[in-house]
Amino acid sequence: MQNRLSVEAYVEGVLSGNRMILSRAITLIESQLPSDKILSQQVLEQILPHAGYAMRIGITGVPGVGKSTFIESFGKQLTASGKKLAVLAIDPTSQRSKGSIMGDKTRMEELAHDPLAYIRPSPSGGSLGGVANKTRETMLLCEAAGFDVVFVETVGVGQSETLVKGMVDFFLLLMLAGAGDELQGIKKGIMEMADAVVITKADGENQTATQRAVAEYQNAFHLFPPAENSWFPQVKTCSALEKRGLSEIWEMISDYYSLVRSNGAYLQNRQRQNLEWMYSLIRYALEEQFYHHLEVKEKLPEIEANVQNEKWLPIRAATYLLDIFKH
Amino acid sequence: MQNRLSVEAYVEGVLSGNRMILSRAITLIESQLPSDKILSQQVLEQILPHAGYAMRIGITGVPGVGKSTFIESFGKQLTASGKKLAVLAIDPTSQRSKGSIMGDKTRMEELAHDPLAYIRPSPSGGSLGGVANKTRETMLLCEAAGFDVVFVETVGVGQSETLVKGMVDFFLLLMLAGAGDELQGIKKGIMEMADAVVITKADGENQTATQRAVAEYQNAFHLFPPAENSWFPQVKTCSALEKRGLSEIWEMISDYYSLVRSNGAYLQNRQRQNLEWMYSLIRYALEEQFYHHLEVKEKLPEIEANVQNEKWLPIRAATYLLDIFKH
Repeated sequence: MQNRLSVEAYVEGVLSGNRMILSRAITLIESQLPSDKILSQQVLEQILPHAGYAMRIGITGVPGVGKSTFIESFGKQLTASGKKLAVLAIDPTSQRSKGSIMGDKTRMEELAHDPLAYIRPSPSGGSLGGVANKTRETMLLCEAAGFDVVFVETVGVGQSETLVKGMVDFFLLLMLAGAGDELQGIKKGIMEMADAVVITKADGENQTATQRAVAEYQNAFHLFPPAENSWFPQVKTCSALEKRGLSEIWEMISDYYSLVRSNGAYLQNRQRQNLEWMYSLIRYALEEQFYHHLEVKEKLPEIEANVQNEKWLPIRAATYLLDIFKH
Repeated sequence: MQNRLSVEAYVEGVLSGNRMILSRAITLIESQLPSDKILSQQVLEQILPHAGYAMRIGITGVPGVGKSTFIESFGKQLTASGKKLAVLAIDPTSQRSKGSIMGDKTRMEELAHDPLAYIRPSPSGGSLGGVANKTRETMLLCEAAGFDVVFVETVGVGQSETLVKGMVDFFLLLMLAGAGDELQGIKKGIMEMADAVVITKADGENQTATQRAVAEYQNAFHLFPPAENSWFPQVKTCSALEKRGLSEIWEMISDYYSLVRSNGAYLQNRQRQNLEWMYSLIRYALEEQFYHHLEVKEKLPEIEANVQNEKWLPIRAATYLLDIFKH
């Protein structure tokens, strides 16, 4: 309870767009203290009617693809047109306590000094689901504080991009030209989640490889089944260095919003995301109770070994553990 | 308890390869009667040490792709070389009670009369997870009865192919040439699950379109990240009509088994599948208890509406429902 404000002070501060109080509210949300959890939920309930109005854009790409440079250039272009931009992150490897608290800000120095931009590094520690939850709630706070666009960035190597996909309207996958080795880090299934692929570093000697990559990804998208929202995924190129391609990407995203807002898919997606968030919180709580049950925890390794080695049927193992849990 | 055998009679019959008793054992497993559930679990426990030895191959494709014709021709080729083949199915739309019990057999008439082949239609009714569970257990029975190869077929339009992927060694996606409209039925993400794509009906006037489709799918696979098991997905063509391409497909599958058996991926995959089966049974049981809780069930629609309309935060809704469940 160190230096906590009242619920009203947080709410008023956030709604008036006070950066310092926004940051303190996010810190409150990220706290693991039980008293903070109650307080943060009260704050969230009150700002909720003012949240939901930003364009929520997920951005992913493996390390080396030029994600920070892209976000910086693209972000600067948005703020130059007067838009307020918040940049959040879900980084499962983030260990902010170990000194990298300023990591995201030094990566994007220009944006960090832009009065219309707000950068918040990934919450650290806890399970990936917990981290994602906090990023989701931070997004609501930023929306209530008046940000027009929220970027949620992640690295495309684990489960984090599925979580990001579940909280954004539009999902952008950054790729390098010359499909091959550099894709090794990207997780299977991620191509099919993308609403657009942007080939970065499309400059200098990369031009030919870039054109080939564009054609390849366009072909690949043609092989995928069409999305329910009627959006056909696009392939764009950009050079953050030469500041080319950024306007086209913004135009594409604007087209996307026009489409999904007019055909109802925007609202449907938001509603489905909210419901799925609730279901996943319930699933998470039920499984946590189960797997933290003392006797279940004690027996689990042995039972898992029996199942792995096909000594026990999974149904026998599940029944056995569920019986322990019940009594 | 109509006409049930003893545990020993089921086990001996299955292990000796007696078709009639195998069929009765599968019927036992598919039964919803509590007494049958106990009996079937006893049977399964006893046959378990004799199961696991078949090649487990998943086959999917939308209606119209020629799945039955493919399975019939491919299956005949396997039995011609002396292999014993079981063909199982997970069809979420199956309503066996409504008269289609013979559906799978009439679709594959030649195979149905082949003494080395055994065709069992999809279990009907219940949740998709429940149907898949029964197919999994049926697979174990077939293995214990001495079948060398098990095909698990499904339609690529729902969640069923994820379940099939979770129970087979090799996953084959059937496609028609001329990527486009005909793919509309295929679910997103399915391409990336496939160990191979087979372009069916590669005969007559389809030849040009087929060659183009092969190149396109090969390109698409190159864009995907490599699989952990070091297998690179292949694109093959076949004409069930002209009986071409089937040997190449079998060779490819044999190559796959050589690779994953030598690099350890085969065993790893089987062990992971067993563990995931156990985890999903636990999750399923926990969620079932929760969502069937009387008061939870009663309140859920109202709470879901609150969450959808952003009146309530998902965390508030989840906490509220979990509290009801606890008390």
